[in-house]
Amino acid sequence: MEESFVPFRGIKNDVEKRLKCYKQDWTGGFRAGFSILAPTTYIFFASAIPVISFGEQLDRETDGTLTAVQTLASTALCGIIHSIIGGQPLLILGVAEPTVIMYTFMFNFAKNRSDLGSKLFLAWTGWVCMWTALLLFLLAILGACSIINRFTRIAGELFGLLIAMLFMQEAIKGIVDEFRVPERENPKLIEYQPSWRFANGMFALVLSFGLLHTALRSRKARSWRYGSGCLRGFIADYGVPLMVLVWTAVSYIPARSVPKGIPRRLFSPNPWSPGAYENWTVIKDMLNVPLLYIIGAFIPATMIAVLYYFDHSVASQLAQQKEFNLRKPSSFHYDLLLLGLMVIICGLLGIPPANGVIPQSPMHTKSLATLKHQLLRNRLVETAHKCISNNASLGQVYGSMQEAYQQMQSPLIYQESSAQGLKELKESRIQMDASVDENAFDIEKEIDDLLPVEVKEQRLSNLLQSTMVGGCVAAMPLLKRIPTSVLWGYFAFMAIESLPGNQFWERILLIFTAPSRRYKVLENYHATFVETVPFKTILVFTIFQTAYLLVCFGITWVPIAGVLFPVMIMLLVPVRQYVLPRFFKGAHLQDLDAAEYEEAPALSFNLASEREMSRTTSFTREMSRSASFAKDISRNTSFAKDMSRSSSFASDGEILDGMVTRSRGEIRRMCSLKHTSCSETSSKELKSLQSPRVSEKVYSPRVSELKGELSPRQRARGPFSPSAGESKPSNLGKSG
Amino acid sequence: MEESFVPFRGIKNDVEKRLKCYKQDWTGGFRAGFSILAPTTYIFFASAIPVISFGEQLDRETDGTLTAVQTLASTALCGIIHSIIGGQPLLILGVAEPTVIMYTFMFNFAKNRSDLGSKLFLAWTGWVCMWTALLLFLLAILGACSIINRFTRIAGELFGLLIAMLFMQEAIKGIVDEFRVPERENPKLIEYQPSWRFANGMFALVLSFGLLHTALRSRKARSWRYGSGCLRGFIADYGVPLMVLVWTAVSYIPARSVPKGIPRRLFSPNPWSPGAYENWTVIKDMLNVPLLYIIGAFIPATMIAVLYYFDHSVASQLAQQKEFNLRKPSSFHYDLLLLGLMVIICGLLGIPPANGVIPQSPMHTKSLATLKHQLLRNRLVETAHKCISNNASLGQVYGSMQEAYQQMQSPLIYQESSAQGLKELKESRIQMDASVDENAFDIEKEIDDLLPVEVKEQRLSNLLQSTMVGGCVAAMPLLKRIPTSVLWGYFAFMAIESLPGNQFWERILLIFTAPSRRYKVLENYHATFVETVPFKTILVFTIFQTAYLLVCFGITWVPIAGVLFPVMIMLLVPVRQYVLPRFFKGAHLQDLDAAEYEEAPALSFNLASEREMSRTTSFTREMSRSASFAKDISRNTSFAKDMSRSSSFASDGEILDGMVTRSRGEIRRMCSLKHTSCSETSSKELKSLQSPRVSEKVYSPRVSELKGELSPRQRARGPFSPSAGESKPSNLGKSG
Repeated sequence: MEESFVPFRGIKNDVEKRLKCYKQDWTGGFRAGFSILAPTTYIFFASAIPVISFGEQLDRETDGTLTAVQTLASTALCGIIHSIIGGQPLLILGVAEPTVIMYTFMFNFAKNRSDLGSKLFLAWTGWVCMWTALLLFLLAILGACSIINRFTRIAGELFGLLIAMLFMQEAIKGIVDEFRVPERENPKLIEYQPSWRFANGMFALVLSFGLLHTALRSRKARSWRYGSGCLRGFIADYGVPLMVLVWTAVSYIPARSVPKGIPRRLFSPNPWSPGAYENWTVIKDMLNVPLLYIIGAFIPATMIAVLYYFDHSVASQLAQQKEFNLRKPSSFHYDLLLLGLMVIICGLLGIPPANGVIPQSPMHTKSLATLKHQLLRNRLVETAHKCISNNASLGQVYGSMQEAYQQMQSPLIYQESSAQGLKELKESRIQMDASVDENAFDIEKEIDDLLPVEVKEQRLSNLLQSTMVGGCVAAMPLLKRIPTSVLWGYFAFMAIESLPGNQFWERILLIFTAPSRRYKVLENYHATFVETVPFKTILVFTIFQTAYLLVCFGITWVPIAGVLFPVMIMLLVPVRQYVLPRFFKGAHLQDLDAAEYEEAPALSFNLASEREMSRTTSFTREMSRSASFAKDISRNTSFAKDMSRSSSFASDGEILDGMVTRSRGEIRRMCSLKHTSCSETSSKELKSLQSPRVSEKVYSPRVSELKGELSPRQRARGPFSPSAGESKPSNLGKSG
Repeated sequence: MEESFVPFRGIKNDVEKRLKCYKQDWTGGFRAGFSILAPTTYIFFASAIPVISFGEQLDRETDGTLTAVQTLASTALCGIIHSIIGGQPLLILGVAEPTVIMYTFMFNFAKNRSDLGSKLFLAWTGWVCMWTALLLFLLAILGACSIINRFTRIAGELFGLLIAMLFMQEAIKGIVDEFRVPERENPKLIEYQPSWRFANGMFALVLSFGLLHTALRSRKARSWRYGSGCLRGFIADYGVPLMVLVWTAVSYIPARSVPKGIPRRLFSPNPWSPGAYENWTVIKDMLNVPLLYIIGAFIPATMIAVLYYFDHSVASQLAQQKEFNLRKPSSFHYDLLLLGLMVIICGLLGIPPANGVIPQSPMHTKSLATLKHQLLRNRLVETAHKCISNNASLGQVYGSMQEAYQQMQSPLIYQESSAQGLKELKESRIQMDASVDENAFDIEKEIDDLLPVEVKEQRLSNLLQSTMVGGCVAAMPLLKRIPTSVLWGYFAFMAIESLPGNQFWERILLIFTAPSRRYKVLENYHATFVETVPFKTILVFTIFQTAYLLVCFGITWVPIAGVLFPVMIMLLVPVRQYVLPRFFKGAHLQDLDAAEYEEAPALSFNLASEREMSRTTSFTREMSRSASFAKDISRNTSFAKDMSRSSSFASDGEILDGMVTRSRGEIRRMCSLKHTSCSETSSKELKSLQSPRVSEKVYSPRVSELKGELSPRQRARGPFSPSAGESKPSNLGKSG
């Protein structure tokens, strides 16, 4: 992305580009049919459950001035607005923990002032929102989002891990609290007697661990061995919501013998109670706020503005990571402007504003990538089957599949890149031609192998999930049946779900990996750095990052400064740019945390280069696979390991679940060969891969190796030589 | 094994052969050093925990006449006797559930007779034991154990699964009971109030599932990615006992706020209470039993004799399965004779007799196979390292390793077969020669790949574990700290641990496997039948077996007939021999349930053929690997799948854990080629594998395939062709 600070230019660019694909954003969504419901439900739960929980927290902290009804309403309202007129529809909006902390602080400030009090609190926050919006407008207009590309992996991943830690902390705190008497409750109630409290806590442990375990398992259902593919797909798509239902049902099993309050369930006000209508009078009250407080509102407003600017942009950035191969443009500037507008609306309504959230936004993109994969796959498999049953020639099968693939591509300005995808398909098809007489299973497998990572980019899933969040307000009496312990389990689930694909996390794990098992990390595609960077450097870098993370985490515990932890993370930008290069070699730093600005002189963001990019990235998977293969040859790694790595990807539906989180890093490697520390040999190997139809070339060295030019060591390590060499005629020994 | 019914011949043979290796049984054990403690502790827990639990059950059922002290004493006494003068020291003895059921029935019978009563109960059981022993002596002398080879896999595996079901049933019943008021207790105690009962039940769920989950995980520690090899090995060896300790400690965490009775803990009498000495007076009382009851004791005695004959022999058989490659002879006849002797001793002492138990006996062999593997591996790795650091020539390295391997072999009559193992090693060493300059990691991996499955056959672990069980009697006050819920978790763990390797179980799973994933079963080595037997036949066979299992399981619920479920399983022998062949093709039956008597005209059991056998089986792994490879070529299966299968075995320590349970079946295939339904092609392929140093040959077809004679379909399915074919110059796209 171009770093331009000319006023309005960023916004203008964003609007122009997003308008071109606006119609397709909708048609694409509707064309997916009912299958759009899978990502929608998945994200709806990931979005609604934390919002409800934060609402309950806000309820406690603000003596009921703001409740889960308000947080849900804000999330739904902002979500609907953003999904319809927002720039990047992959971004998920919601009321987040920092907002809750901020509002709690403001409430505590306001309630002690005689001329403000809790009565004028919402009106005062209205003014805070005004100032915040003003600052956001300024930031958007002046192109502040241009510097988002200075937020390298180190910052984004640190932030991601911090959010995961906060979610996990919430889960642990929640479970511990299940053993205690809740603050606002009457401790003399039967369910708060020691025996029932203990029983409640134990039940909470069972429910939350049950939910966590089954939810994590169900996400992997596609790779289960048992059950029909249909059932497995359904469980993988809807397993998590389903598990919330199942464990809520389980919580009702001991209903007979147990007091009504066990297990504890959500506490939320009835949305139709008289108090809920107070929000409409906030605008009127705003004029009653003393002038001093109106001006003073600027102070919290700056903090919120900084927070939102950061949160919103990073959430958007993480939802558009390169490995997703998005084909539609980003829209940082315009989205920030729109956020300002939504903050004003929320302020006037007296509800806490929503902003882009992590980890829901990247979760959304991931689930849409799975959807797109399923859609493409089903279509192509169907086409192939139809042709084969018609006894079509190989050429005809290819033609039909080509046509089907083309139909699935977004039209408009992306014609060229879709033609590209086609070409890929064609080439692979040629190789597949001979296998048309195969049975269905093989075709499916084949197609799975060939399809690049693509994301179903559309607005429908976001609109639907926002609407469903809005529906939660009406469904509050139903939601109240969910035990709080299931919520804690869900929080832990979200924390764990956000970890895979986070290279920082993988590096932490690497440190605890036994030296003899480190090679296993190579089985993940994005672990290039393991080969190119010395372990000691990885260690120091990771320890530095972990220390920084812990400082950030510590800051969230400080009552009010805690809100400003984004400042700490923003500080990472200059640290990364000016401090780290003094301690680490450029090449190592590039492998661990590739920064575009170190790579090439700021790529200009035009259509041509974008198309180039989307083409490049759509090849990522194949490239990375080939590259790891080429590297293996050059490093004389055992053939078997390499093969198993490729073939581990050859099973059907589950491919993508792993892929989107695994294909990181290798693009970087491709793009920055000059900068990385990889050897001469491997870059040569890579060049040989650059010619099309390279499969024979790749095979040929292998053939010669097998024929005899094989180095002795390779021969010894080949997986067959020892085994085959020892095979004795054991059956001869019996029959002879 | 020869079917000979000449009186005493079987016993004589057994004694003669076991005497030859008696000294080595001890020296071998002591030579293992402290590492013998790993299998010892593992089996001690697996042996003691059920015995304690059965003791508690007996305590309840016999109004305290027999307690856990008695069951522990019997297990320890019989175990020590058997480990010192028994035939097969791999066999683990213990008081089992059927014995408990039998004693319960006898107690209920006795207590209602005015001339017997609960006072003369133990004396009467003394007479029952006398008769039982007499019958066992007769069976042993007449060579009844000869027919053990008619117990094919179908019977053994059905029995194994039945035992697993009974253990699981016990676990579930135990956990459900945690929510209820125990029978003998005062329901007015505070811990039996509804609230505390509920709390206790929930706590029990947490503890039992916690133990089950962590114990299952810890067994796989060797393949963990994290932590040092040392730590991982320790956890894998001692994880299960450790987890019992950990979860017992966890049960004390809420001690402050919770009544003393929560969670419930083991209830056992003090072994030093006066009542515990009553057993010494049983002999005296035996003369007071009326004659009618002495004669009538013959009826329960026949049932117990049948039960013990079956249980003891099948447990022994399952501990000596072919895939363990045992080198020392079996001893069915002599062991049955000794069992009779022990039954007399137990009867006179008034304690319930112990017999061979499942799943502990096969668990014992498995853990000793792991031990032997570790020992061999460490020795060879050490030797290789020493030689390499001395800059020894390749020949020298080989020589030293050869020597080291030889030193580890059992001497005596097994000289020849150990020379065999040596030859294997030599050949593989030659192939490895070129890699002596490798680092330590690769040597270890190499050695792991080469070592055949061997079991550390000795008497020490059995003696030690029996002594430790005896020590439990003294440690009763400590054992009482274990929560009963941990016990239920442990029962579930034992049930699950006994499943892998049970082909019947795997076939049940296969039925629920999605058709497109059935090929994954081939990744297990013993699934030959999947390829050779039509799925429908497998289905019918498995459904028949499952129905039979459920009938057996149902019978265990019938109050007294339940003891005779072994008769049902023995009925399987004629069913298998005469009924099944009418419904299934011989070749299919042979693949699903190979029976020696169908294979060849009763192999004579002499040393030569036995040596042959041990040689054959020690090649099993290599052969099966090569065979699956050859089959793959003939079936044109994708190269990658095959490679990944081989390489999945290439990681270090964990190999064996899987191997001993996986290498089944393939031997069968090798031995009975004529009978199996495998194709002409694959048998040709197998022949080509029979020549030594065959690796080049195996490679050559592959080379020619890769050069161009590859069928078009194969080319298309090669894992690299599609990927490499699509690789575009993505970095050129940026820099160019």
